[in-house]
Amino acid sequence: MKDIEKIPAAFDPATGRMDGVPLTQRFLHDLRGCFRDTAAFEKAAAEGNPLIYTVAGVEPAAGDGDLHYGVGMIMPGRIGDEYYMTKGHLHSWRDAAEVYCGLAGDGMMLLEDEDGGNSRMVPLGEGKVVYVPGRTAHRTMNTGTVPLTYIGVYPAKAGHDYAAIAQRNFSCVIVERDGKAVMLPGEKTR
Amino acid sequence: MKDIEKIPAAFDPATGRMDGVPLTQRFLHDLRGCFRDTAAFEKAAAEGNPLIYTVAGVEPAAGDGDLHYGVGMIMPGRIGDEYYMTKGHLHSWRDAAEVYCGLAGDGMMLLEDEDGGNSRMVPLGEGKVVYVPGRTAHRTMNTGTVPLTYIGVYPAKAGHDYAAIAQRNFSCVIVERDGKAVMLPGEKTR
Repeated sequence: MKDIEKIPAAFDPATGRMDGVPLTQRFLHDLRGCFRDTAAFEKAAAEGNPLIYTVAGVEPAAGDGDLHYGVGMIMPGRIGDEYYMTKGHLHSWRDAAEVYCGLAGDGMMLLEDEDGGNSRMVPLGEGKVVYVPGRTAHRTMNTGTVPLTYIGVYPAKAGHDYAAIAQRNFSCVIVERDGKAVMLPGEKTR
Repeated sequence: MKDIEKIPAAFDPATGRMDGVPLTQRFLHDLRGCFRDTAAFEKAAAEGNPLIYTVAGVEPAAGDGDLHYGVGMIMPGRIGDEYYMTKGHLHSWRDAAEVYCGLAGDGMMLLEDEDGGNSRMVPLGEGKVVYVPGRTAHRTMNTGTVPLTYIGVYPAKAGHDYAAIAQRNFSCVIVERDGKAVMLPGEKTR
């Protein structure tokens, strides 16, 4: 109990940083394989390695009814016409859902069933909540001009499975068209 | 799956209202027994029955790994020197934790072990997250001058037990002293 209460729990909605919580940082080079436009990716990666997103993850306890959470931040930007995005993941415990609540900025989530079917694009930003059901791969992108920040809450025993996505990527891609975010089948953008 | 995606998921951080989600509203008369200063309560209750707090509760699914959440709003105000507050509750499934994330305004949470011991006061407001462990009674109050809004996320099977608190109330009370929120043993304020 005391350990739980020692956890610093103040965050900055504009930056996604939490006092005293180590940040997981993902840079462009960490996202090889995520963007469909590989030419645009290689060009950008040759020019530099900018920060794409951070997560401040908090794991207060690990019991059956416990929860973990992370405050995430995604920088604004694009590789070609694909928005800066997270790697995306499934939960290792496939039944585990997740609630995302937007804190600042504008973005989208790409949700797909475990098998890559039933793709859908759902708005996430300030004043938006997204329910990610179990067995659903989920990836978040910043479609705006300022950092997108959000909190994601999930069962403590959910776990993260990045391997399935790293192997096959998502079926669909979310790209900018005439200033708007649209979802397209992945192969159409290659 | 389709039902989950039909759930409106936009909220107003200033008011705690969610599009299309019915609001549970609690008025002063609903809070009889919560405030220690019964004379101040009866005086205020005779003068009117103002809105104290609202919750927009969303229950997308009820499986083992699913989550429920509520967007809450507490009005600013006091009864005597006690801040407007929620009834407070334990989870029916005692092991269930809850993550609260402040969206706007300033407040406090009062946490107590299931038996009424180990009382502690934890800040909840914009930029603050509170982890409520299992077996912990929790009550929220607005210590500021504008509505306090927050989101609370908990396991779908947590359930709400209000009866235990209605019988014994919390052991401690949070009151305003010289413009600051302080926690006192409940009997000292009666």
